[in-house]
Amino acid sequence: SNNFFLLAGPCAIEGEDMAIRIAETVVSITDKLQIPYVFKGSFKKANRSRIDSFTGIGDEKALKILKKVSDTFGVPTVTDIHEISDAAMAAEYVDVLQIPAFLVRQTDLVVAAAETGKVVNLKKGQFMSPESMKHAVTKVTETGNEQAIITDRGTMFGYQDMIVDFRGIPTMKQYAPVVLDVTHSLQQPNQSSGVTGGRPALIGTMSRAGIAAGVDGLFMETHFDPANAKSDGANMLDLSLLEKLLTDLTAIRTTINSL
Amino acid sequence: SNNFFLLAGPCAIEGEDMAIRIAETVVSITDKLQIPYVFKGSFKKANRSRIDSFTGIGDEKALKILKKVSDTFGVPTVTDIHEISDAAMAAEYVDVLQIPAFLVRQTDLVVAAAETGKVVNLKKGQFMSPESMKHAVTKVTETGNEQAIITDRGTMFGYQDMIVDFRGIPTMKQYAPVVLDVTHSLQQPNQSSGVTGGRPALIGTMSRAGIAAGVDGLFMETHFDPANAKSDGANMLDLSLLEKLLTDLTAIRTTINSL
Amino acid sequence: SNNFFLLAGPCAIEGEDMAIRIAETVVSITDKLQIPYVFKGSFKKANRSRIDSFTGIGDEKALKILKKVSDTFGVPTVTDIHEISDAAMAAEYVDVLQIPAFLVRQTDLVVAAAETGKVVNLKKGQFMSPESMKHAVTKVTETGNEQAIITDRGTMFGYQDMIVDFRGIPTMKQYAPVVLDVTHSLQQPNQSSGVTGGRPALIGTMSRAGIAAGVDGLFMETHFDPANAKSDGANMLDLSLLEKLLTDLTAIRTTINSL
Amino acid sequence: SNNFFLLAGPCAIEGEDMAIRIAETVVSITDKLQIPYVFKGSFKKANRSRIDSFTGIGDEKALKILKKVSDTFGVPTVTDIHEISDAAMAAEYVDVLQIPAFLVRQTDLVVAAAETGKVVNLKKGQFMSPESMKHAVTKVTETGNEQAIITDRGTMFGYQDMIVDFRGIPTMKQYAPVVLDVTHSLQQPNQSSGVTGGRPALIGTMSRAGIAAGVDGLFMETHFDPANAKSDGANMLDLSLLEKLLTDLTAIRTTINSL
Repeated sequence: SNNFFLLAGPCAIEGEDMAIRIAETVVSITDKLQIPYVFKGSFKKANRSRIDSFTGIGDEKALKILKKVSDTFGVPTVTDIHEISDAAMAAEYVDVLQIPAFLVRQTDLVVAAAETGKVVNLKKGQFMSPESMKHAVTKVTETGNEQAIITDRGTMFGYQDMIVDFRGIPTMKQYAPVVLDVTHSLQQPNQSSGVTGGRPALIGTMSRAGIAAGVDGLFMETHFDPANAKSDGANMLDLSLLEKLLTDLTAIRTTINSL
Repeated sequence: SNNFFLLAGPCAIEGEDMAIRIAETVVSITDKLQIPYVFKGSFKKANRSRIDSFTGIGDEKALKILKKVSDTFGVPTVTDIHEISDAAMAAEYVDVLQIPAFLVRQTDLVVAAAETGKVVNLKKGQFMSPESMKHAVTKVTETGNEQAIITDRGTMFGYQDMIVDFRGIPTMKQYAPVVLDVTHSLQQPNQSSGVTGGRPALIGTMSRAGIAAGVDGLFMETHFDPANAKSDGANMLDLSLLEKLLTDLTAIRTTINSL
Repeated sequence: SNNFFLLAGPCAIEGEDMAIRIAETVVSITDKLQIPYVFKGSFKKANRSRIDSFTGIGDEKALKILKKVSDTFGVPTVTDIHEISDAAMAAEYVDVLQIPAFLVRQTDLVVAAAETGKVVNLKKGQFMSPESMKHAVTKVTETGNEQAIITDRGTMFGYQDMIVDFRGIPTMKQYAPVVLDVTHSLQQPNQSSGVTGGRPALIGTMSRAGIAAGVDGLFMETHFDPANAKSDGANMLDLSLLEKLLTDLTAIRTTINSL
Repeated sequence: SNNFFLLAGPCAIEGEDMAIRIAETVVSITDKLQIPYVFKGSFKKANRSRIDSFTGIGDEKALKILKKVSDTFGVPTVTDIHEISDAAMAAEYVDVLQIPAFLVRQTDLVVAAAETGKVVNLKKGQFMSPESMKHAVTKVTETGNEQAIITDRGTMFGYQDMIVDFRGIPTMKQYAPVVLDVTHSLQQPNQSSGVTGGRPALIGTMSRAGIAAGVDGLFMETHFDPANAKSDGANMLDLSLLEKLLTDLTAIRTTINSL
């Protein structure tokens, strides 16, 4: 369809019902708009600021729910891995293995993901330049796996803020398809509460700019009840706003494709 | 027309012929695309990195050329001022007085510009947050002049780079119309040569993202021979590329207007 | 004495009594510690964030107070200038002309200050690299005035914070004597109130690190009643803390000199 | 002795001879200066920018060399771990487990290190604020292990530079003893070569400022032949410079202790 693709879903898999409910809604919208869709959910949250944050419902249990979403709706799925041993385990259940931004310099982890033969979604470290992502992609391709994608989730700007550098999009497109993570890139880290903040009111602005700047895909976390989500509630998109957002973005993409 | 407006022209007024030649080309393009156009040219370059940089052809001489451009093509003009006494002088020749980014915290200068009754274009300091531009706008409006506009020309990111924070566009639109300066925001300052660098290949990406993010206007420096321009050659748009760029941006704007 | 030198005094000259009272205290301490002392006071605050901030008691009145301090205590004085015409005016009253950080790229202003033959204190722009201060110094020396000094008052770090880059001290010492401004470099700009914040509890840490890193001088704003000072109260040193601070710093300097 | 303590050694354990040779030299110097010393060496380099970088001589082989250094010279040792399973393995050989800066948000890894009962050296993430290190320390102490230390190795400043925020030293000392890593904090990451650069000429400036600012310890990588070291050669201290450096720093520390 030449539309952008979408990686979307809840931050964490909190249970089967919520996963199915979110997937069903997103699938229905993306089918209509001809947006290739990958369901996203973390089976484990390994890098919370605080030790008392929610970390998951159990690895296998969450991965099985991802598989069920895939089987039920016929969509691929993506989850993030944190240790070398996660790669083979997660690869049995999902189609795309995601390397978290903090971990994208861990060579063994990237190589382990690549060696599963799955698509590898490399999140750009908040501390990395667009140009330096070339080396991360090379770690994937040197295993013989040509299916790397890069997701930008913002760059540190002082201690408590992140910024998206749109100049990096054409740069990184030289190495792999580029996705803009429009929810995490609006985070505000290192808040005194120990819980990362966010600015979800700006998801529309960020998404529109990303599509206009030529990204291949968008990444966003969405939930039917962000305020009660078990993690990252501060920056998820309310699911009820998704259809209007994707419709608008599809219109912009159509124009961009025509230029 | 509900199209975005454009502030464009050479960095410095180098002479009458070059000013007329650039204005003629831009007027012809913007007329066709129904883009409200303001001719831009500095009568003096007061804040060069190095003492041996070009600073101008003479203040009155340059201002008279701006007036001639205005009279010849029926377009308003904008120039930047650096001292309180510049305000009244420049106001006799141009329609918009621009406060340079480095000087936007100088209250007396902003007030002097405002008191001329002309439109005041406040460049966001590279060291200022979008939110802090509210105070700059207030310095204009408290004189009774309601015609402030804000132009974002990027924010310091480390010593030798600038970044545009697209989150700031909706923020600053609460205070005044917002313009994105797509050539200066691609500058790379503090280079070891003492001459600011730039990345003009990214003007298209930056402009598209700006229009999609909802800016009211664009600012760009353009020249028929950037390599031989007397200042800022490293980041001006080649005039021959302008028509295609503005045509594309008008298409995006039309889509944005329809959402 | 080979001790560091000190530029210190209130942010703004609020009146004769306060200036004399502060000078008297600082002179007494610096005499005892053999610290060469320059009394500092602004005759005008030209770059406040908000239009309703205090800007001064009158230019000539404030400059005369600076002269009186100099005559009374036999110490040189420093004040900051904002317009070309300020240079000659202030030079009649003070010994050191200071170029504010926001204005250090304004070539005409720097040259005007240099041409008075007075010492020129160039504040490093919050947006400038240490290396780029070489060009600012050259603007002074090319007039034949060899008396430039550089003062570091911190560098932008995100929107609402500043950071001091101690690597810059040896770099800038290649160009001119280097002063660390230990009160302004602890500012936190762009606060939502429109009034710059600060962290005066860290003045000791910052000063000690500066002396150890080899600065030639220190700059600090001090007041006997910071909470009621008319400007920058959030980051001035309480005058009652000055003697202990300078005594400690002199001990560190003595050690550094012996290495 | 109330002197600062020192974590120092080569970046990577390249073999037994080089480890012994470096340890012997450092032990001799630190014994003389009464500096408590911990020998540092990585048994594995897991997070190189490029896939073709050196990663180690074999995990067990390197760990055994660390043990031999400890047995030979009677000094504790520190090494960094990257996966949960590394914690128990390394704890059999060394006294301090170090969490790399990129990994300090990985809760499971920090907890695994803490549960060995060894001292845990938490490197401050280049993307973390000093205040946010409180949460990292809590992850250690909630396991019942009170032996956390924090090491600052600089903070991202733009894409290709790092900066040390000396304001963070007193802040982090509220949570745990604070160490300044004076070689890594001078790194310049994201260079176009894919090999991190550095500025070792500034190690003296950085160390002096750190001691004066009150750090409890220093961390530095040192090698008798930095140019031929297998990793991080661009920013290690030449071992021949160590004695003079530590002698000077001890003098400054003595003064600081006396204030």
